Order: sequence, then C-alpha cells, then structure tokens
Amino acid sequence: MNGLKWSKIEKAVARQAFDLAYQRECATLASKLKEMVADVKGPADIWGIHDFLSEQRKKTDEKYDFRYSVLVFVLARLLKERWLEKADLDGLGEDKIEKIKYLAAMEG
Amino acid sequence: MNGLKWSKIEKAVARQAFDLAYQRECATLASKLKEMVADVKGPADIWGIHDFLSEQRKKTDEKYDFRYSVLVFVLARLLKERWLEKADLDGLGEDKIEKIKYLAAMEG
Repeated sequence: MNGLKWSKIEKAVARQAFDLAYQRECATLASKLKEMVADVKGPADIWGIHDFLSEQRKKTDEKYDFRYSVLVFVLARLLKERWLEKADLDGLGEDKIEKIKYLAAMEG
Repeated sequence: MNGLKWSKIEKAVARQAFDLAYQRECATLASKLKEMVADVKGPADIWGIHDFLSEQRKKTDEKYDFRYSVLVFVLARLLKERWLEKADLDGLGEDKIEKIKYLAAMEG
C-alpha cells in the first residue's frame, strides 16, 4: 500500500477520522474504567485495573499508527471495529475507500 | 536487625499489622483512584491514571516486604506514615517495639 498518494485534503480527512476513532475508543475505555473502579473491593482489584490499563495502552499504541504506509490498514481495522463509520471517510479518493472497505471485510 | 528473634506470636502480630496497613493504604489508593477516574475528560487522563497506578504499584511492592530481616524497618515506616498505630503492634516484645519507635522517629 506504499504506492498510494495522499492529497492534502485526504491527509486531513484521514487525520480527522483517525482522531475521532481514537476519541471514541478512549471514551469507551473510560466508561469501562469507571465501571471497574466502582467495583473495587480490595487491593487485587486495583492491580487488576492496572493490568487492564497496561494492556489497553499497549494495544492502543500499536493500533493507532498514522504512517501513510499503513494507514489504509489502520482505517480498515477501525471501520471493522466500528470506531469509524463509512461516512467518516468521506473525502478520501475512491482508490482508498475501495481498499479500506475490502480490507475491513477481509480482516480478522 | 538480622539478630532479632521473632516468636510465633510476634510473627502473627507482625503479619496482622502488616496486612492491616496494606489494606488501609490500598483503601486510600482506591479512593484516590475513584476521584481521578471521576475527573477523566480525555485519553490523556486515562494514561495519566495508568502512570499513577504503575508508580503506586512499584512503591507498594517495594514497601511491603515481609522478610524478618527488614521487618522492623518496614513496620517503623508504616507507623511513621500512619498506616499503623502503636496499638497495632501490641504483642511484640519490647526489644522490637523500642526499635520500631526509634526508627519511626528517625526515618525520613
């Protein structure tokens, strides 16, 4: 996918979608965190939350990679995981949209 | 302090005090965690909580060391930090109580 050229507008659209997905995923994580914290009954629960956050941070850092060489894969994954809707990608060229949809349908 | 002998009763008293301090400190940590989580406004706050828990876990793991060779130091620190009260040490021999009080007054 290194061959894809991203126009200035496409870069802006991709960045906005990427940031939006990150905000949405983190908002869901914050809700989960609130539930877990409300249920804390002892030390083990606190460290369980720490383990959970360590894992989420690692996963999130790996997933949200904005390099253009991997961006269609990243956007496809975010679409598949429903952090993005198709409309969030409006403004990208058909070449990218097609690849993203194809990958989203294929992956996992 | 390696020379101190701990009777069976003293070991039980020390264990109980140690566990009590740990429960108290973790309960305070849980309260702090609840406050932090209630204030989460975005992703950075979530990772800030993760950093905070990483630090607290490291500190707690280092502090709560039940080896008899270091136990008077540990109990002195817990007394100084008010996770323990003097009454929690009732049942320890005078030799240990004196050392713990002395260290609690000295330390830090």
